[in-house]
Formats: sequence, structure tokens, C-alpha cells
Amino acid sequence: MVGVTQQSQSTRPLADRSPEEIEAFLAEQRAAHADLAARGLTLDLTRGKPSSAQLDLSDRLLALPEGHVDADGVDTRNYGGLHGLRELREIFAELLWIEPEQLVAGGSSSLVMMREVLVDLLLKGGVDSERPWSAEEKVTFICPVPGYDRHFTLLEWLGIETVTVPMLETGPDVDAVAEIAAADPSVKGIWIVPTYANPTGSVVTQEVAERLASMPTAAPDFKIFWDNAYAFHHLTEDEAKSADILSLASAAGHPHRPIMFASTSKITYAGAGVAFVGGSVETVQWYVGHLGQGSIGPDKLNQLRHAQFFGSAQGVRDHMVRHREVIGPKFAEVQRVLEERLGGLGVATWTEPTGGYFVSLDVLDGTASRVIALAKQAGIALTPAGSAFPHSDDPRDRNIRLAPTFPPLEQVTAAMEAVTTCVLLAAAEKLHG
Amino acid sequence: MVGVTQQSQSTRPLADRSPEEIEAFLAEQRAAHADLAARGLTLDLTRGKPSSAQLDLSDRLLALPEGHVDADGVDTRNYGGLHGLRELREIFAELLWIEPEQLVAGGSSSLVMMREVLVDLLLKGGVDSERPWSAEEKVTFICPVPGYDRHFTLLEWLGIETVTVPMLETGPDVDAVAEIAAADPSVKGIWIVPTYANPTGSVVTQEVAERLASMPTAAPDFKIFWDNAYAFHHLTEDEAKSADILSLASAAGHPHRPIMFASTSKITYAGAGVAFVGGSVETVQWYVGHLGQGSIGPDKLNQLRHAQFFGSAQGVRDHMVRHREVIGPKFAEVQRVLEERLGGLGVATWTEPTGGYFVSLDVLDGTASRVIALAKQAGIALTPAGSAFPHSDDPRDRNIRLAPTFPPLEQVTAAMEAVTTCVLLAAAEKLHG
Repeated sequence: MVGVTQQSQSTRPLADRSPEEIEAFLAEQRAAHADLAARGLTLDLTRGKPSSAQLDLSDRLLALPEGHVDADGVDTRNYGGLHGLRELREIFAELLWIEPEQLVAGGSSSLVMMREVLVDLLLKGGVDSERPWSAEEKVTFICPVPGYDRHFTLLEWLGIETVTVPMLETGPDVDAVAEIAAADPSVKGIWIVPTYANPTGSVVTQEVAERLASMPTAAPDFKIFWDNAYAFHHLTEDEAKSADILSLASAAGHPHRPIMFASTSKITYAGAGVAFVGGSVETVQWYVGHLGQGSIGPDKLNQLRHAQFFGSAQGVRDHMVRHREVIGPKFAEVQRVLEERLGGLGVATWTEPTGGYFVSLDVLDGTASRVIALAKQAGIALTPAGSAFPHSDDPRDRNIRLAPTFPPLEQVTAAMEAVTTCVLLAAAEKLHG
Repeated sequence: MVGVTQQSQSTRPLADRSPEEIEAFLAEQRAAHADLAARGLTLDLTRGKPSSAQLDLSDRLLALPEGHVDADGVDTRNYGGLHGLRELREIFAELLWIEPEQLVAGGSSSLVMMREVLVDLLLKGGVDSERPWSAEEKVTFICPVPGYDRHFTLLEWLGIETVTVPMLETGPDVDAVAEIAAADPSVKGIWIVPTYANPTGSVVTQEVAERLASMPTAAPDFKIFWDNAYAFHHLTEDEAKSADILSLASAAGHPHRPIMFASTSKITYAGAGVAFVGGSVETVQWYVGHLGQGSIGPDKLNQLRHAQFFGSAQGVRDHMVRHREVIGPKFAEVQRVLEERLGGLGVATWTEPTGGYFVSLDVLDGTASRVIALAKQAGIALTPAGSAFPHSDDPRDRNIRLAPTFPPLEQVTAAMEAVTTCVLLAAAEKLHG
């Protein structure tokens, strides 16, 4: 997370300006916003969706699979195979540094797998639980913020309480996490997007991962929901490596603590990829045991399609370079506009991610919802205020998640120019009082 | 359900024979079984799986979809569309006699959708529930028996109790159902496979459907889980039509009572089809509302593939005729062997289904598990004894589910000859005492 505060010749922090200067600046931004609103734009930076150009990269999938038999001779068109296709699990196990026996390939959505795991924990308890979580008086999750809205929605839907900790450049504030986890046996887990976090782009460092893996917890069955949705989604040649959380946890005597999730939603097709869940061999047996009570196996044909498409772990890595070539310029453009329009004014800080799908923009306290409302007036859809917080409650009303992958580059430019105008206007309004 | 009891010239009921005749018959069957065991067969009649020849009928799917845009112009490769593809819902809504707004197209498994619906009912309650089912002291389901093992497994896994009623040729014993449902508010639902039931092949009549739809129930939120897995799976030209349970329930003032399930698992690919859930518009909103807490949409690309493959509701009907041509002869062969080997002996009755995937064989009380063990000795895998009953408890130990679709025809013949030998041996053992 990089706060940009350098001051150029042509800019001075708004807070240092005189009331008259602020007055003039406000009038200027009002006029700019009125111009913007008159243009009748319709632009959207709301969701982390791949663009058509990215989806096109995988269109060889449309003509696959060749044949319908997997490497073990199984007819993938028929029932069975709860663990998923071995050859596809081998590819992703290598990428995730685990053994194929520690990985299950499922349907198209890792979010659905997270739901399944949470429901299993609630109804049955985990491999190291004393009882089903639903039999506990209360279940609480630690939520680093800003974070992924759908993680929090799942908890809210399931009646799981939340406690927030700050998300730092090195991962969650691990001192805060360790203190909460040690003190309260109702605290049963934490959400982590370890590599290129949503929305900050933070990467959990080796040190933070070690603390998370080894910290004492009051609950014997504390779980790290390690949602590695962007593990291979590098934006630069400086490729972050995810910490090997399973080995760390195992070495620390907590082999069942991490449950990993991943998917090809942002590798192949967002709506028709393959999702994965991983963990200790016992965790995998536990998951598959419950899965088998209500499933006769995943869509293995789509898994075969993907195995043939990638060919190997290197095939996945090569494919991600092509994604980088498409979306790298969009992220660069977001940075360029933010720097040029907001740099030095002291009205915002933002992240400079080297991977993932988002830029996290913090505006002046109390102005995020105003910025989002102003943007809406100008035809720019932004994620609703507070989205990156449980119960949509951003206590400082300052965080805005920017998702530049879906629109074409020229729309990213136009949308970001509009967003920065709204940031400036809201800041001027606040400082003008 | 047709009991076959006609007597041929060469056979007399075993029960009418003298001890010496039984002794001789027993010796004969022992020898036949020993011969069988010596042949080293490996045959499998356990599961209702389509054969390779059936799966081949859909192999045009392997080269679909053409393009990736649906009729509404949506890019099916991307996220979204919780209700599923409109053009595919239109095809199946027509087949199921409901409106497209009453139907959701999901992933590849209707069993997974049943799990989701049950979990939603437990955690949240239904549209007409006073509270979540998990807040009730007890939840009970009525289970017509023999029935589908995976239905019962789901209930057992979720801690839902079961009460059985007999499955008749006209559907569940509706007098028994009505009495139980009226008396006990913990009775929240019933499983029904309305058309070509698993395993009896029964078809719920219009009269029984009307009773189920209109009967008073002690629970205000009683649900009919209407699993129409074999709605279009006719074995003869005499095509049964499913009762229109949603209209019947709506007319009776219980619009939210039925929840329908269907899938293409036995139409296209068992492992890579599309599943559906349907109900009142409110039920669909309720389901999608909960689904959206943990899903960003189904595999729409596979739904587009299916919509293009079928083209129309008539396309589905035409396709099912091709299935009938493949599996019809196998079911005829099961009947031929059962008649020729067991007819008139008074040791078994069996169903003569006109659709679906199973033949239900009732042997002499107390001999089903012996028959299955004898078959195993001879290399013939049969579904474990009691499978068609909750907790695998067949109180009369007489029911055996035969699933002849998967093996090639000549294996069906060999397996059925072996099974009938085991039935005769077990019967002779019992009568010999």
C-alpha cells in the first residue's frame, strides 16, 4: 500500500490553502463536475470482471475437450470422481505448492466451495472441532479491512459475527490478529486473500504467514480461509510468491488450520472455470466426505477441457503473462491519472498493486460516499461506499475500490478522470465547510 | 408395480412343493451358483448410470457452443446471471409446464440443488416458514419406500428424521401421507420422484398429485420435494405425463408447497449436464436470494451449449427417443429373464416400468441380503441390501434395485441370469429351512 504525497510545482496540499483559494478551487471543481454530468457518460468500475479481450485468450476452450477420457481412462462424461480430475489437480497442486491429494477440483465457483465449507463447519464442525460451530454460543471471524465484500456477505448470511483488523502492506495486522485469536474462543477463523489482496493488492509476507500459522488460538479449530484468488495474477514482471501456508501451519503443529481456495475464474472464464479447495489430507477427506452426501461428482468434462488447455503448470504461467499484457496498461493508466490529478494535493492515498484486480483508493475521511454519489451523477458506477467492510460499514467513510479490468483502456481513462474530479470536488466541499 | 405370478406348464410355486422336491431344487440351484462363481464374472447392476452409447448421443456438445453470446446478448463466459440462461430455461419450462420465471438453471447436479434448498430451509426457513427449520425441535420427512438412496442420505446427513410410507403403483400411499402430515407439525416435507420413480417406476397419478397438493398439513410450510429426474425418460411409446403439481398446489391455496428438481444428467451427460430447480415465483426469488449470498452465477457457457444442442423442447423429446432406442432393449431383457427364470415360482415380484432407470425386485422376505451376497460371490455387484430405505433399513429384507442401463446388453443378460439363480438359491435355502 503506497501513499502518494509528493508535491509537484503546480500543486499544493488543499489543506494548506487559504479560504479564498479553496473557494475558487471548489467553484472550479463544481464546473468540472457539471461539465462531466452533461457528457452523459456510462462507465463502470464496480466489479473485478475480466474484459472480453481477456476472455478471448481462452477461446480455444470452446473447441475442447478433444475426446472425453481422462489420463486414468475415466469417461469424464459420466458420474463420479468427487475429488476432481487428477491431471488438473496435478497442475494446480504444483502451482500452489501442495500435493495433488491435498487438492479438490470442483465446479466453476470457489465462492460456492467457501459456502460449502462454512456450512459443513456450522452443521458438522471441522476435523479438529469439539462440536459443530452451530452448537457454539457465538462464532466470530476476523476480517482484515478493506477486504472482499462477498467474504463478509457469506458470514453475515450465516449469522457469523465479524471483528475487523487493518489490512497492511504486509498482510493483516498480525499483532491485532494474534491478540484477538488468543483471547476469544468464539473467534474461529480469519479471511485472507494472501496474494494481491482484494482490494489493496497487499501480499502476505513470509513473516506474517508464519505468525498466522503458528499463533496460539483460544479456539482449537481456528481456520485460516486462505483465498488465493489472484495467486498467479501478476501485473508486473516482479511476481510475488504466496507463502506456503500449509507447510508453515503443519510445521507449527496446526496442519488443519489453513483451508485454501483458488479458481480459474480470472485465468480462463469467470463464469465457466474450475474452482479448487485444498488443505491437509484430513481436511480434504473431511470436505469430500461431506460433499459426497449431496453430490455425485463435479463437471469433469470442463476439468478435462482445462487440463488440455493448460497442458502443464507452465502453461498456466504462460497464459497469465498474456493476461498481464491486456490489463497491465489499464492499471498503469489508473496510476497515471491518480498521480496527475490528485498527486500532492493531500486529498487521497491509493495502492499501487503489482498484481490482482483492484486499486484501493482512500479519500478524505467522510467523503467516500459523497465521491461515489457525485460519480453516479456523472454516469460512473463505483462499488457502493463501505463495500470492502463487513456490514458495508466503513467507519471513516473513506475507502473506494477501483476495478479497472473490465472496461476498455479508453474508458478507464475517462472513468478515472471523472472519479478524480469527484474526489477533488468532495474534498473541496469538505474543506470549504 | 406389477406382480408377476402367472404359472407356466414347467413351473409350480416353490411353496407348493414337497420337502423332497425343495431338496432337489436346492441342490440344483447350488450347483448352478457354483458354476456361476467358477465363471469369474465381473458385472455391475448397481447404479443408474447412462451407458457410453447413451453418452455418445450427446457428443455434438463437445464442439459447442458456437460463439459465446446468449439470446439476450450476454457474454456467457463472464460472471453473472444467477437465474441461468433464459433460452435454456424456456425450453425446460415448456417441458415442465411452468413459466420460465418459475425455473432456475444451475450447475451440473440437481442433487447439489436439493442440498442447497434443504440447507436454506434449515438455516433460514422457507417463504412460508415461521422460523428456520433448525429452530424447530425436530424436522421429519415422509419417505415413500422403496425410494432413492441419495434422498435419504441427504436427510440423515442433515439430521432430519424420516418416516416411511409405501410406494404404490399410483405414487406414495397418499392416505398414509395425508394422515402423517396432518397429525405432526414436525413433518415438514416429502420426497417424491413423480414420474418413473426410483426404483419402482411408479407414476404419480393426477388424483394422488391433487391429494398431495391440497391435503391439510400441520406444518404451515410443508414442502413437496418433487424430484422429476426421469420426467422425459420413457421406455415405451406410452409416455407418462407428470402431474402439474405447481398448478394443483396453487389452485389448492398452497402455491409454495412444491419445489421441483430436474436435470439433464440422464439426457445429455451425467457428469456435465445442467440442473434445474423450480417453484412459485416467490420460491424462486427465495432460492436465488440465498444462492446469491454465495454465488456469482452458474456455468452459463454449459447452459448455452445445451440450449444450442437442444434447440427447442421438441429437441429434448426427440433426443429422448434416441435414448429409448438404446436402453429399451435392456429393460426388455431384464423382464424376459425375470419371467423365464422366476415366473410362476412365487419367489419374487418385480416392476415393469415404462420409463426411468430401474426395476424394483422384491424377493422372499428375509432373503434380499442373501441374494446380494450370493451375487457378490458370483462377481455380480448389486446395490447393497436396504439401499432404497432410510438408514438402509429394509424391514422385510426383500427389496433389490436393478439398474440395467450402464452395462452392454449381453452383460445385462448374463447379470440377470446370475441374479435369478441367486434369487432361486436363496428362496430354496429359506424354504428348505
